[in-house]
Amino acid sequence: MDISFIPGGVCAARGFRANGIRCGIKASSKKRDLALIVSEKRCTAAAVYTANLVRSAPIKVTKAHLADGYAQAVICNSGNANTCNANGVEIAEGMSALVERYTGIKAGDVIVGSTGVIGQQMTLTPMENGMAELVKGLGDHSDLAENAIMTTDTVPKEVAVEFEAGGVKCRLGGIAKGSGMIHPNMATMLVFVTTDCAITAEMLQRAVSEDVKTSFNMVSVDGDTSTNDTFAVMANGMAGNKLIDSGGEDFETFRAALHAVTVKLCRMIAKDGEGATKLVTCLLTGAADDDTAKVVAKSVICSSLTKAAMFGADANWGRVLCAIGYSGSKVDVERVDVSFRSKAGKVDVCKNGAGIPFSEEEAKKVLLEDEIDILVDLNSGDGAAEAWGCDLTYDYVKINGDYRT
Amino acid sequence: MDISFIPGGVCAARGFRANGIRCGIKASSKKRDLALIVSEKRCTAAAVYTANLVRSAPIKVTKAHLADGYAQAVICNSGNANTCNANGVEIAEGMSALVERYTGIKAGDVIVGSTGVIGQQMTLTPMENGMAELVKGLGDHSDLAENAIMTTDTVPKEVAVEFEAGGVKCRLGGIAKGSGMIHPNMATMLVFVTTDCAITAEMLQRAVSEDVKTSFNMVSVDGDTSTNDTFAVMANGMAGNKLIDSGGEDFETFRAALHAVTVKLCRMIAKDGEGATKLVTCLLTGAADDDTAKVVAKSVICSSLTKAAMFGADANWGRVLCAIGYSGSKVDVERVDVSFRSKAGKVDVCKNGAGIPFSEEEAKKVLLEDEIDILVDLNSGDGAAEAWGCDLTYDYVKINGDYRT
Repeated sequence: MDISFIPGGVCAARGFRANGIRCGIKASSKKRDLALIVSEKRCTAAAVYTANLVRSAPIKVTKAHLADGYAQAVICNSGNANTCNANGVEIAEGMSALVERYTGIKAGDVIVGSTGVIGQQMTLTPMENGMAELVKGLGDHSDLAENAIMTTDTVPKEVAVEFEAGGVKCRLGGIAKGSGMIHPNMATMLVFVTTDCAITAEMLQRAVSEDVKTSFNMVSVDGDTSTNDTFAVMANGMAGNKLIDSGGEDFETFRAALHAVTVKLCRMIAKDGEGATKLVTCLLTGAADDDTAKVVAKSVICSSLTKAAMFGADANWGRVLCAIGYSGSKVDVERVDVSFRSKAGKVDVCKNGAGIPFSEEEAKKVLLEDEIDILVDLNSGDGAAEAWGCDLTYDYVKINGDYRT
Repeated sequence: MDISFIPGGVCAARGFRANGIRCGIKASSKKRDLALIVSEKRCTAAAVYTANLVRSAPIKVTKAHLADGYAQAVICNSGNANTCNANGVEIAEGMSALVERYTGIKAGDVIVGSTGVIGQQMTLTPMENGMAELVKGLGDHSDLAENAIMTTDTVPKEVAVEFEAGGVKCRLGGIAKGSGMIHPNMATMLVFVTTDCAITAEMLQRAVSEDVKTSFNMVSVDGDTSTNDTFAVMANGMAGNKLIDSGGEDFETFRAALHAVTVKLCRMIAKDGEGATKLVTCLLTGAADDDTAKVVAKSVICSSLTKAAMFGADANWGRVLCAIGYSGSKVDVERVDVSFRSKAGKVDVCKNGAGIPFSEEEAKKVLLEDEIDILVDLNSGDGAAEAWGCDLTYDYVKINGDYRT
């Protein structure tokens, strides 16, 4: 499989255009707050959503629109989550109707997203006022769309790849938003992916549903599962490859391409966690099975104490062991080995569940880097998993101590 | 039932003496680090322990010692958790042997506790050196014992009550330690309770095991379940009441007295959470049943985003709703009402799952107090629960960014 990274984000694939503008939803800010992605042709589409019982109105509307497996556009605002609002569905349907009015794409083919504060009233007015400008500016502007869906994100997140399906060059790219309220077991934050690969809605849904298990469901910033998280993919088939309508080599290549993009977005999201200064990856091996590995790896990256220790570059491995112990999975703690690794080196700190002598100086050097791997070997089988998180910092508290004002 | 609070902590009950000294386990500190509590007479005893699979050596030893239902002393050090040490059990047994050597109380009747850093080698030497002084100073010194088991605690935690069982005045009191690595579903931190009430080991264990479900298992500071948490009770029967050997009025009175002490300790522990500036209580009503109420209440007080909002006195109730939604319990989110309350007043912020207009100014006033109640009514039944937590602050990060140095 030959998958190479290319620029272009959601506009890398043929037939997709995007734009992002400031229409005034974020009243007190100069930031962009409304994004649009459109495809020249109608797409097969698939999505997964948050596991939170409190769900945004846009999710309710998007689910209905994707029930037939087709979509052609994404509209997404930041600055208001449109969640827990009495007229939320009306607003989300109104956003779809605006897309139809200004682009001709059917409202029922629109994926709707919102992100921001929960439970704040909102109106369509700023979007109505901005819609002409938004549509007029559609072009090779993945970056503008990405900017318009950001909230507390500090860096834009776009990734695209090129790959071959049935001898035909295809492209697939995505943008993501999310830095707080991010936790495993949900479809996670907002992620929109486009591709020109021809694939049926059914196979696309299968690829998406499988993918999140080892991508967005393995990211945690703060343990809070958001109400709005959506991961949606649109495929317009304009690459001209033979339609992927069943398992096989082409489908596996497609899955690998999708995963290359989603894993990169995961790492970007974790590293840009609210207030984060470090990407912390837990590489779990030797578990009885992959499910155990996932649970334990997530427990490690979710531990507030481990996260705070990573912020302080403190090789306090006992907290890692503690998080392994309370994960809920059956683990023989007397077999556990732990090491810390970064580009500055690797230091072994725990063997068979007990501390071993190590150089604190060397450990500090390893942990002062901005990408840290926590290597955990349970020495009990072949199960493995990778989970991504970040450190817990003063700035997380600052950002979230008064988010609304 | 007439239960009144009295001073004296673990020395309030007849026949108990305590002491706490500095023996040098905390090498770089002037703080006390070794505590001893002894009873004149052998006691029935019961305990519950952490649910973490990684368990301290003291827990292993204490479990063995309490297998017969009897104990007569507690020895506990701070400064080292004696967890994940190859010779941990030997050290914990050594601590029991020291008690026997210096007091004559059988090693097999000693409850052992340790708290501090995980995975650090330790020796008996400082304790051997301090033992004579520790025993010599035994007296009405619950406060010194309490001081010696503190780590990052900023305030001592002792509570005692007086009550009548079968017409006889009994006393029951406890000390607690714990401000970080505290999370529901464990026996929680270190809590030692003494009473002169006569009760069989079996009924005592029943009281303890029931009690934690609505006391220590409903406290969370940071979501990390410690490896060392122990809640142990010793009853020496010196009050002379008729032995409680079955259910009935006396047993219910005993349970109520115990609960009065444990709930007060819970609130103290939560309020003194690492870096905390506020006690945050979630009062959950209207759940389908009590178990649902517990799960949802804990989810609210564990939410990092809600905790950060409480720190910022920000009435961001959407985060409360979000935490209700991801609790894992089945909740009809469109029936949920939320209010914030403190001694400054009460403000309703959410009705039937949607925001209602409220005065931000008034809400700020309510949330600036140091004890906040989050009132959640699920309007779906008679289940209720109370959970205690704290806010998430800069100081939590500071304390835990470099705990070991």
